[in-house]
Amino acid sequence: MKTLLPPDYEHVDSEMLKVEVNLDDTPGEWLGYVMDKLFEAGANDVYYTPIYMKKNRPAVLLQLLCSEDKLDDMKEILLSETTTLGFRYYPLHVFRMERSTRVIDTKWGPVTLKEGWQDGKVIKASPEYEDCRKLAEKNQIALKDIYQAVWEVVEKEKQ
Amino acid sequence: MKTLLPPDYEHVDSEMLKVEVNLDDTPGEWLGYVMDKLFEAGANDVYYTPIYMKKNRPAVLLQLLCSEDKLDDMKEILLSETTTLGFRYYPLHVFRMERSTRVIDTKWGPVTLKEGWQDGKVIKASPEYEDCRKLAEKNQIALKDIYQAVWEVVEKEKQ
Amino acid sequence: MKTLLPPDYEHVDSEMLKVEVNLDDTPGEWLGYVMDKLFEAGANDVYYTPIYMKKNRPAVLLQLLCSEDKLDDMKEILLSETTTLGFRYYPLHVFRMERSTRVIDTKWGPVTLKEGWQDGKVIKASPEYEDCRKLAEKNQIALKDIYQAVWEVVEKEKQ
Amino acid sequence: MKTLLPPDYEHVDSEMLKVEVNLDDTPGEWLGYVMDKLFEAGANDVYYTPIYMKKNRPAVLLQLLCSEDKLDDMKEILLSETTTLGFRYYPLHVFRMERSTRVIDTKWGPVTLKEGWQDGKVIKASPEYEDCRKLAEKNQIALKDIYQAVWEVVEKEKQ
Amino acid sequence: MKTLLPPDYEHVDSEMLKVEVNLDDTPGEWLGYVMDKLFEAGANDVYYTPIYMKKNRPAVLLQLLCSEDKLDDMKEILLSETTTLGFRYYPLHVFRMERSTRVIDTKWGPVTLKEGWQDGKVIKASPEYEDCRKLAEKNQIALKDIYQAVWEVVEKEKQ
Amino acid sequence: MKTLLPPDYEHVDSEMLKVEVNLDDTPGEWLGYVMDKLFEAGANDVYYTPIYMKKNRPAVLLQLLCSEDKLDDMKEILLSETTTLGFRYYPLHVFRMERSTRVIDTKWGPVTLKEGWQDGKVIKASPEYEDCRKLAEKNQIALKDIYQAVWEVVEKEKQ
Repeated sequence: MKTLLPPDYEHVDSEMLKVEVNLDDTPGEWLGYVMDKLFEAGANDVYYTPIYMKKNRPAVLLQLLCSEDKLDDMKEILLSETTTLGFRYYPLHVFRMERSTRVIDTKWGPVTLKEGWQDGKVIKASPEYEDCRKLAEKNQIALKDIYQAVWEVVEKEKQ
Repeated sequence: MKTLLPPDYEHVDSEMLKVEVNLDDTPGEWLGYVMDKLFEAGANDVYYTPIYMKKNRPAVLLQLLCSEDKLDDMKEILLSETTTLGFRYYPLHVFRMERSTRVIDTKWGPVTLKEGWQDGKVIKASPEYEDCRKLAEKNQIALKDIYQAVWEVVEKEKQ
Repeated sequence: MKTLLPPDYEHVDSEMLKVEVNLDDTPGEWLGYVMDKLFEAGANDVYYTPIYMKKNRPAVLLQLLCSEDKLDDMKEILLSETTTLGFRYYPLHVFRMERSTRVIDTKWGPVTLKEGWQDGKVIKASPEYEDCRKLAEKNQIALKDIYQAVWEVVEKEKQ
Repeated sequence: MKTLLPPDYEHVDSEMLKVEVNLDDTPGEWLGYVMDKLFEAGANDVYYTPIYMKKNRPAVLLQLLCSEDKLDDMKEILLSETTTLGFRYYPLHVFRMERSTRVIDTKWGPVTLKEGWQDGKVIKASPEYEDCRKLAEKNQIALKDIYQAVWEVVEKEKQ
Repeated sequence: MKTLLPPDYEHVDSEMLKVEVNLDDTPGEWLGYVMDKLFEAGANDVYYTPIYMKKNRPAVLLQLLCSEDKLDDMKEILLSETTTLGFRYYPLHVFRMERSTRVIDTKWGPVTLKEGWQDGKVIKASPEYEDCRKLAEKNQIALKDIYQAVWEVVEKEKQ
Repeated sequence: MKTLLPPDYEHVDSEMLKVEVNLDDTPGEWLGYVMDKLFEAGANDVYYTPIYMKKNRPAVLLQLLCSEDKLDDMKEILLSETTTLGFRYYPLHVFRMERSTRVIDTKWGPVTLKEGWQDGKVIKASPEYEDCRKLAEKNQIALKDIYQAVWEVVEKEKQ
C-alpha cells in the first residue's frame, strides 16, 4: 500500500468562518446558480436548509464555510446574485484528520481513494465520486457496483 | 355537558382532491400570499413541503386539499399567482370523525371546544386557537396557560 | 450459495393504501410514540415529513402505508393517539422484487442478507441492520466496518 | 409579438404516474446520480423530500412523475441504482396550460420565453434558465440582472 | 432619482446574537404565536427549521437574531411561551449594505423600494411586500403583476 | 407541594460547544446508530437537519451540543462511525432555568415532573416522557390521556 501524495497532517484550523443568509425572495432557480458561483470563488462548502419565515413564507437558509481571507469574495457574490441586503457570519474551528490520497485498482478500473489516518492507521477510506461515476458510465453498470468493488479492494488489503 | 351545535356524523368523503405543484421559481414571499388566496377561495387545507429539484434548486411543493367542485377556483389562483404552467391532482378519501362544538368556561374566559366522538363517547377535544390567543392577549398571560386551563376543565368534567 | 428461505416472487400488490394526516397541534414527543404504535399494529411503513401550515405553524405530515384490511387498526390509533379529527387515504400499487433471505459469515460473525432478484440473478443485497448493530457492539468496532465486511463477502462470491 | 412555435393546447393528461420510494440506506452522493439517470430515461420530474423514518433515521423520499409507458424504464433504474427492493406508484391527472415558446431580445442578448395562455391571452411568461445563465456568464453580470431585463421587455410589450 | 430617506451606511454590527432552542414538545400551533411575540419584542428575525431528535421525534429548531440588549426580552418570551427550560446563544457579526428607501410610481400605484448601494451605485432593489400586496388586492390583479411592474420602472430608470 | 430534589440554580454555562458535520455519503440507517452512540458518550443533545449539498445531493447536517471536556469523545465517534474526514465546532453560551424535579400522583399513577422556576415561582412544568409512556402502556390508554391527567393535577395545585 503506497501513498502517492504526502499526507496532510491532523490539525485544527481556527481561521474559518460560517456565513449565513435567510432568503425568502430569491427563487430556487437562482440558488442553484449561486451555489456554483460560491464554490468557484473558493468556498469550502455551501449548503441549503429549508426554513420557515414570517408571513407563512417557506424560505431557504444559505450557509457557507470559507477561510477568513475569502470573506470579501463571498460578500461580492451574495450581494450581487441574491436579493439580500446583508448577511451574518461567525468564526469556527475546523478539525481535519490526517489524510492522504492514492489510486487503487478495482475490477472496473482505477479509483482515487481519500484516506483518513488516526494514530498512524487508516481508519477511513472514501472513494472519489467523480471517478466512480465515470467508471459506472464507461462500464454501463450501476454506480453502487463501483462502490462495492472499491470496498472489496479496501477490505482485502486489510487482511 | 350540553352540546351547543348538532354533531356532524362520522363519514368518509370520497369527492375530495389533492392538488400539487412543484415551485422552483416562485419566491417564498409570494407563497405566503398564495396560501391566503387559496384558503379564501375555499381550500380545505394548504401546506408547503421543502423539496430538492434538479440543478441544485431548493424548492417548495405546494399541496392543497379541496372538494372536486372547487378545482376550477384553485386552478385560477395557481395559474395567476404562481409561476407554474401546470399542476397535478388525484382523488382522495377523507375520513371525518363525528364532531360537535361547544363553549366551555375556563378561569380566563370562554373557549370554543371542538370535540370528536367515537361510539357515542367524546374521545378528543381541541380548543379553538383563535379563542385561546385572544384570551392570552387580553389576560396578558402565556398562551400555554390558556391551553392548560382548558385541559383542566375537560379533565374535571370526566370525573 | 444456498438460499435458506424460499424466494418471494416479484409481484405488484394493488391492495395497499397510503394514509395521511397533517398535524400542527400534536407535540413531537408524542409522535415518536405514535410511530411505534402504528408499526406494532401492522403498518408496512410510517414516516414523517416536515411541512408548513397556515398561521406560521411548523407542522408534521404523518404518512403510513398499509394493506386495505389494516385501515381500521390504523384509524383506531390515529384517532386515539393524535389530536386529529380526521385523515385522508388513497390506493397505491406496490411493486416488490423477487427476494430471498440467507445468512452469510463475515469475519465478525453471521449477518442476515436480504437479496433482490431480477431475471434469475441477484442484483441487490441488503444486510440486516439489527444483525450488524449487534456485531458492532459485540466486537467493539464501528458499524461501518461490519457493513464493509459484508460487502467484501458479497463481492468475493461474485467472482 | 410573433409566436415562433405553435402553441400546445390546454389539456388534462390522465396517463401520468407518480412513483415513490423511501430511501434510508442509499447515501446522498448516489442520489444526485440517480436523479440524472431518471431524467435521461424520460422522467417528467424527479425531486427529493427529507423524511424521518423509524429508528431515528433521517431519510429521503424520492418522487418522480412519468407517463405510464415509462414505468418500466424507471423501475430498471430504481432497482439497479438504489438500495430499494420495491417502490409504489399511483395515477395522476396533470393539467397543462396552453403554452408557446418564443425568443425575445433583451439588452444583454436573446432569451427564450415560455408563455402560458388562458382565454387567448398570455398570462404568464417564464424565461429559459439556461439562456439566462449563459448571458450572465458571457456579460459578466448577475443572473438576476438578466431576469430583470427580461421582465422589462415583457412589461413594455404589454403597453 | 431622489432619495426620500437618508441612506444607512454600510457597516458591520458585532453586537448581535443568535438565540436557539430545540423544541420537541411545543405544538406547532403555539409556535406561530411565539414568532409574533418575538418580533413584537424586537427580534430582528425569527425562523423555524425542521429537525429530527432522539426517540423518533420530529421537532423544530427556533432561531432568532437580536441585538445583545434584547436578550432579556427574548428570554422572557421563550421561557413563558414555549416548553423549554433553557436556550443557547452566541455572538454574530452582521454585515449590512448601505441602504435607502424611496417611493416609486408603477402603473398600479406607488410602491416603496428598498435599495442597496455599493461603491456609490444602487446594485439591488427590493419592493416592499406589504405595498405590493395592497396594490394587488386593490387592483384585483395577481401579486406577481405588481412585482413585474416594479421591475419595469427600475429597469427603465437605468437607461 | 414538596420538592424532592434540591433545585438547580439558574445559570449561564459558557463552556459548551456545538459540533457540526455535513454528511452526504453516510446512509440514514447508520445515522440512527450514531445518534445513540453520541448520547451514550455524553452529548447533551444530538439532532439532524435535512440539507441540500452540491451535485443535487440530499444530505444531513449532524449537530450536537456538549461540554468542552467531551470534545475528544465526540471526535472519536464521529471519525469512526461516520464517513467524514473532519468536523467544525464553536463555543456557545447556554442559559438554564432554575429547575427541580418531583413526583406527582395522577389518576393513572405517579409521574415525574420537571419544573422551571423564575423569581421564586414555578412557571413551567414538564412531565417525564418515559413515565407517561409506561403508564399509557400499563393502563392501555392513549399517551395524550396521561399528559392531560398531568395537566389536571398541575392546574388544580395552582388554585
